[in-house]
Amino acid sequence: MPDFSIGVDLGGTNLRIAAVSTDGQLLEKVTVPTRIDLGADHVVDNMCGAIRSLSDRYRSRGTFLGAGIGVAGIIDLEAGIVRKSANLPGWENYHVRDQIERRLGARIFLENDAKVAALGEQWLGAGRNVDNMAMLTLGTGIGGAIVLDGKIFHGMNGMAGEFGHVTVEPNGVPCGCGNRGCAERYASASGVVRMAREAIASGQAPELAKAASSEAEFSAKLVYDLAMQGDEAAQRIFRRFGCVLGIMLADIVNVLNLPVYVIGGNVAAAWDAFAPSMFEELHQRSLIYAATAPGDSSGESQDTAQSVGIKQWKTVVKRALLGGDAGLFGGARLTTIVG
Amino acid sequence: MPDFSIGVDLGGTNLRIAAVSTDGQLLEKVTVPTRIDLGADHVVDNMCGAIRSLSDRYRSRGTFLGAGIGVAGIIDLEAGIVRKSANLPGWENYHVRDQIERRLGARIFLENDAKVAALGEQWLGAGRNVDNMAMLTLGTGIGGAIVLDGKIFHGMNGMAGEFGHVTVEPNGVPCGCGNRGCAERYASASGVVRMAREAIASGQAPELAKAASSEAEFSAKLVYDLAMQGDEAAQRIFRRFGCVLGIMLADIVNVLNLPVYVIGGNVAAAWDAFAPSMFEELHQRSLIYAATAPGDSSGESQDTAQSVGIKQWKTVVKRALLGGDAGLFGGARLTTIVG
Repeated sequence: MPDFSIGVDLGGTNLRIAAVSTDGQLLEKVTVPTRIDLGADHVVDNMCGAIRSLSDRYRSRGTFLGAGIGVAGIIDLEAGIVRKSANLPGWENYHVRDQIERRLGARIFLENDAKVAALGEQWLGAGRNVDNMAMLTLGTGIGGAIVLDGKIFHGMNGMAGEFGHVTVEPNGVPCGCGNRGCAERYASASGVVRMAREAIASGQAPELAKAASSEAEFSAKLVYDLAMQGDEAAQRIFRRFGCVLGIMLADIVNVLNLPVYVIGGNVAAAWDAFAPSMFEELHQRSLIYAATAPGDSSGESQDTAQSVGIKQWKTVVKRALLGGDAGLFGGARLTTIVG
Repeated sequence: MPDFSIGVDLGGTNLRIAAVSTDGQLLEKVTVPTRIDLGADHVVDNMCGAIRSLSDRYRSRGTFLGAGIGVAGIIDLEAGIVRKSANLPGWENYHVRDQIERRLGARIFLENDAKVAALGEQWLGAGRNVDNMAMLTLGTGIGGAIVLDGKIFHGMNGMAGEFGHVTVEPNGVPCGCGNRGCAERYASASGVVRMAREAIASGQAPELAKAASSEAEFSAKLVYDLAMQGDEAAQRIFRRFGCVLGIMLADIVNVLNLPVYVIGGNVAAAWDAFAPSMFEELHQRSLIYAATAPGDSSGESQDTAQSVGIKQWKTVVKRALLGGDAGLFGGARLTTIVG
């Protein structure tokens, strides 16, 4: 039997914990509630209990290599601390990694959730045939990660891959980061809701207005459903979403020149609504993409590709394959690839 | 005595060739004209003659490790071919690397000029204290390169670091690449001339108009000189130049999170005219930069830095140090770091 690790998704509501073998088999998955209200020590005790019982169950079959924990927010990788997380208020000075290591006597890795998701997709999902890729996680905002040589590329201090704050509209909507026109102000669940409210306020979106007044919670999903039912105002919002993603992806392709870009997160479910305008924009804005897009048949970019001799290369933008399990696989993977 | 290599800058007008020791000493530098009109074989013969005489001179003192050649344009790294270069028309199917290797019996590396310049700056110039950096080369257009772990990061097929085609204005000026609003349509010598011509056409730039009509060649240098003399229209052009660089740098900082970004190329000489607006824009548009800028004293970003615990990290944007020799050093360096 191969050895195994534990991957943990430390969310604000649930703790999801999985035992994964080093050959990529999901052995078992458990979910326990995250009782943030009872304090960090309590959450960590709970997590350690679940990790211990899961690892005890598979210890006879292989060596337990440790656990990798994904958390939304800014992670201090050196200190093993969650510096800033909407899900874990008040944890800023709590030494998560050390506390867990002490309790379990095992190697523990703490990592940003978008980063472990990317690692999971590279290992077993949409990027499994390449060593280098980037991933966008479309949720309330946009998470991002770059994987190089099968490892997370952190940059100087773990902040590499902040694709959500690429400027797509220099005089656009203000963002909490201080910039204007960040991609995540458009191509995210919160962006969709904001654009929908603006469309309603402008009086140009009667169906959206009706939905907003009748539903308890006005969500991006609702706007997506209307778009799929043919509502023009809702479709316009997702076209804008796609254009913004296309501008941002073109920048990333031009900067990184990777073979695979994976799009995941809850909002990737709206793929049908945003992908056409995304690809159109990307194709137009990145010569590298136009020259290497798979199955491309436009005369101009074929000529370009031929003239620069890069026809044999392909740049692929695709949907994530592992859904919410990507982070569990990626967390487990951390224990085998970090030195 | 340490071993040595040869760095070559294969320009359209001149061939610049330098012998550089592995400990970074420039032993000797020669320049010979590039007689493009006499054909590729002639140019390569000339180059090989100069490399041979230079290497013979230092062979008694150390082993000759080979040569690295920087060329403006798109390089096919695998084939050792110049796929596209304004300086070397008609070389598309000429096997430069193999031809030189055959003549010299030494290891030869062919590389894009902006990439070798970055490698030189990382080895001995503005990036010498870091392993990871990016460099922008501001010339007629914008060249770019990413250095990771002291090596050029090529991406899939050598196109990584195309910073000049990052979109800074989604509905901006059309670019030859197919995109609109590429950074290099503004923050380059050709961008300055274009903006100056537009200012003249609008009737808002009398001094520029006067200069344009009296000078034989209307250049970015001329616009810079007027800006330095206090001409408001010329200054406006360089402020725009700086803003565009700031938007683009903010994107790169957010994506790559590197410690050092080096700005070189001829047009970097206009630093005083564009740097203030560049830093202002960058500071405003990248939270990562704002939180890690050296010597920053604004209350808000200090608080941000503190809250995310990254005060000890610094992101530095600085001018290149080696001028035109960066590519010679970088070319020589290629022979010792490529496996």
